[in-house]
Amino acid sequence: MGVLYGPKSYENEPHRDPSLIVNSKEPFNAETPPKALVRSFVTPEDLFYKRNHGPIPVIDDPNNYRLEICGLVPGPLSLSLQDLRNLPKHTVTATLQCAGNRRTAMSKVRKVKGVGWAISALGNAVWGGARLHDVLELAGVRQESSKRHVEFSSVDVCKEENGGPYKGSIPLSQAMSPEAEVILAYEMNGKELNRDHGFPLRVVVPGVIGARSVKWLTEIKVIEEECQGFFMQKDFKMFPPTVDWDNINWNSRRPLMDFPVQCPICSPAEGDLVKAGSKMKIQGYAVSGGGRGIERVDVSVDGGKTWQEAQRFQDDKEYIADNPEKCKRFAWVLWELTVELTNSPLEVVAKAVDAAANIQPEDVSSIWNLRGVLNTSWHRVRLNVVPPQSKL
Amino acid sequence: MGVLYGPKSYENEPHRDPSLIVNSKEPFNAETPPKALVRSFVTPEDLFYKRNHGPIPVIDDPNNYRLEICGLVPGPLSLSLQDLRNLPKHTVTATLQCAGNRRTAMSKVRKVKGVGWAISALGNAVWGGARLHDVLELAGVRQESSKRHVEFSSVDVCKEENGGPYKGSIPLSQAMSPEAEVILAYEMNGKELNRDHGFPLRVVVPGVIGARSVKWLTEIKVIEEECQGFFMQKDFKMFPPTVDWDNINWNSRRPLMDFPVQCPICSPAEGDLVKAGSKMKIQGYAVSGGGRGIERVDVSVDGGKTWQEAQRFQDDKEYIADNPEKCKRFAWVLWELTVELTNSPLEVVAKAVDAAANIQPEDVSSIWNLRGVLNTSWHRVRLNVVPPQSKL
Ligand SMILES: [Mo]
Ligand SMILES: [Mo]
Repeated sequence: MGVLYGPKSYENEPHRDPSLIVNSKEPFNAETPPKALVRSFVTPEDLFYKRNHGPIPVIDDPNNYRLEICGLVPGPLSLSLQDLRNLPKHTVTATLQCAGNRRTAMSKVRKVKGVGWAISALGNAVWGGARLHDVLELAGVRQESSKRHVEFSSVDVCKEENGGPYKGSIPLSQAMSPEAEVILAYEMNGKELNRDHGFPLRVVVPGVIGARSVKWLTEIKVIEEECQGFFMQKDFKMFPPTVDWDNINWNSRRPLMDFPVQCPICSPAEGDLVKAGSKMKIQGYAVSGGGRGIERVDVSVDGGKTWQEAQRFQDDKEYIADNPEKCKRFAWVLWELTVELTNSPLEVVAKAVDAAANIQPEDVSSIWNLRGVLNTSWHRVRLNVVPPQSKL
Repeated sequence: MGVLYGPKSYENEPHRDPSLIVNSKEPFNAETPPKALVRSFVTPEDLFYKRNHGPIPVIDDPNNYRLEICGLVPGPLSLSLQDLRNLPKHTVTATLQCAGNRRTAMSKVRKVKGVGWAISALGNAVWGGARLHDVLELAGVRQESSKRHVEFSSVDVCKEENGGPYKGSIPLSQAMSPEAEVILAYEMNGKELNRDHGFPLRVVVPGVIGARSVKWLTEIKVIEEECQGFFMQKDFKMFPPTVDWDNINWNSRRPLMDFPVQCPICSPAEGDLVKAGSKMKIQGYAVSGGGRGIERVDVSVDGGKTWQEAQRFQDDKEYIADNPEKCKRFAWVLWELTVELTNSPLEVVAKAVDAAANIQPEDVSSIWNLRGVLNTSWHRVRLNVVPPQSKL
C-alpha cells in the first residue's frame, strides 16, 4: 500500500483558499481573483488556478512512490522520489495557462463547450525538479530527430477517459532539448508541491498550454507517435469558426502546444466606478508561448482610438527582455500604466506584441472555436466615470 | 591578392534573370514575379529575391578566402573554404524573407521608409554548409546561457554604415543550439552559392528575418552584447503606429529576429479577368518564423464573409506537419484552393494560423510602422468577373 492512486469520490479533497473564484466544485476548478493576480510576479500556490478532471489523487506514503520510465527506451527505469531529488535540480519560472482561459468571453459570441473561465485561468510559479532530459538520458535515450513523443500519465480518474487517467505527450525533440527546460517538478515556489498541483510529482512544460503539464505523474513512456488520449486527440485542438459539432473532424487538426500572445486587464474591472480628474493605475499581465517574450503592451482608454505604451516588469522593476541572464522567457510580464481621467466615457483596451511581432486579434469572433480555446482577443473593460466631487 | 572585397562601383555585377521585378538597380534589389514563386516548393536561385546594400563583392581566387572566428572565443581561428567543407555538411530547407516584404501595401496607409517590395521579397531554398555551432566549438566555445551574441560581418560597402560592411548578430544560445540549424552556407539548392546570394560564404539563420543571414561573410565574432551596427540598432525594429520620425527612440525597441505568420495570394493577381461559371485555382504561400509550422490557411472569395480551408503542401503532395522527419519546419508551405465562380463580385482574401495559433491582423493600419516592416495583414485581391461567354 501507499502508492499514489486516484480516488473515486471527493471525500479527500485538500483545503482551498476561500477567495478563489470557483467554476466547478467536483471536479474542483477555480481561478484567482484578477486583482490578486497582478499583486505579485510569482503567484502564491493557494491562489494559483486549479484545473482538475476528477478527485485529487492520494498517496499514503510518499516513500512508496515510483515513477516508471518505459516504452521505446534502451533501459527502462523505476525511480523513487529520492532518486529524482538526487539528480541535479533545475528551477524554471514558468507561467502555466489553461487553453480555455477567457473562454467565457468567447461563449458570448456563440455557445462553446468547457469550463467557464474568466481571465485568471493561469499563474506564474517557480518550479523546481529534475530535468526531463536527464531522466530520459538515464534510461539511455539519445537526442534524435524523429516523430516520437514522450507520453505522461497521471493516476487521476477522468470521465473523459472513461475512468482512466489523464494523459498527454510532447515531441521527443522538445523533451530532450535543454533550452525547452521541461522538468519533473517536486517543488512549487520553493516549497514541496501540494496536492492540488500534482503532489508528489508533475511535469512542467514551459511555454505550452497547461494541459500538457501532467500532474500526479506516474509513468513516462517514449512512444512512436503522439499520445492517442482524449485530451490530445479530441479536446485541445483549435478549429476555425466554420467547424461545429455537426461537421467536426478531429483528425484534421493537431493538438495544441505553445500558445499565442495574451494580454488581459486585471485592474480596474468591468463596471468599476472611477472619478473624473483622478489618477488611475491600470494593471494586467501579458504572456506568449514558446519562450517568446513580450515586446510591447499598448493600452487605450478611449476604446482603441489612441494608445500609450505600458511599463512591463518581471521580478525586477524593469523587464530586461534582451538579457537572458535576467529575463524569464517562459514567464509572463506584469504591466502597468497610470492615466489621468477626464470625464469622457472610459473604455480601457489592452493588447500586446510578442518577441516575434505576433499580435492579438481585435475581435473574438474571428477566432471563435467550438471548444472555446485560446481566446486572445483584445481585452476591453468599460468603466463608469463619476464627477470629481462624488463619494465612491 | 584574391581576397574577398566590396567594390566601390557597380561595374562588376553578376548577370540577372530578366523576369525579376526590379525595385532598385544600384544597389540591386529585385523580387520574383508572384506567379513564378508558387510554381515550385524550392525557389530557383536566379528567381530568388535579391537584397543588397552596395555593389556585389568580388573574389579573384576563392583559395585565398579566409573566415576569421574571433572575439570572446578561447581559440581564435582562421578557416579556408576547404576547412569549412571538411566539417560535416548540414542541409536545411529554409525560407528567407525580407522584413520589408509587402511594404508597398503598408505605405498606402501612410508613407514608410524602405525598398518598395510587393509580395515576393522571399524565397525558399535548400542551403548546404557547415553548422555554426561546429565552427564555434572548434574555436573552443561551449553552450552557455548568457547575453552574448555572435556577430557576422560582410565585406560589402554600405552607405548606411558610412562605407563600412553590413553586420548583424544573433544570440549565442541560438548559434549554439543544434535545433536552430544555423549554418554557414556554401551551397544553395545543391549548387555552389552564387555571387548575388553571398559567394563564397553566407550565414543562414532559419526562421529569422533575412537581414540576419549575412552574405559574403568574412568574420564571426563572439561579443558581450548584441551588435551595435546600423541594421541591428537603427533599422530593423518594429515600432507602434504612434511612433514617427519626430518622436522615435531607437533604444526603446529590440532588433527584429523571428517573424510572425504571413500568407499572401500569388495567383490570381489584382485585377485579373475571370469568367463566371469557370473554375479558378487560387495559390499562395504561408510561412511563420521560429520554426513554427502552418496549422491552417483560410481563403475567402467574398471579401471575408465566408471561408474555406486551402490545401497545404511542401515538397510532397501533403504537408506532413506533425512528422518532423518529413516536415520542413523552417520552410514555407505552398497552398491552393480551387473554387467555382459565380457572377458575384470576387474579392479573394487569405489568412493563415501558425502552429502556436498565432493569427494575422485583418487591417494593416493596426501594425503600420515607420520602417514598413512585417506587414502580415490579411492579403486581398480583387478580380473582375466577366460573363461566361466572354473571350479573355
Ligand atoms: Mo487547460
Ligand atoms: Mo531585409
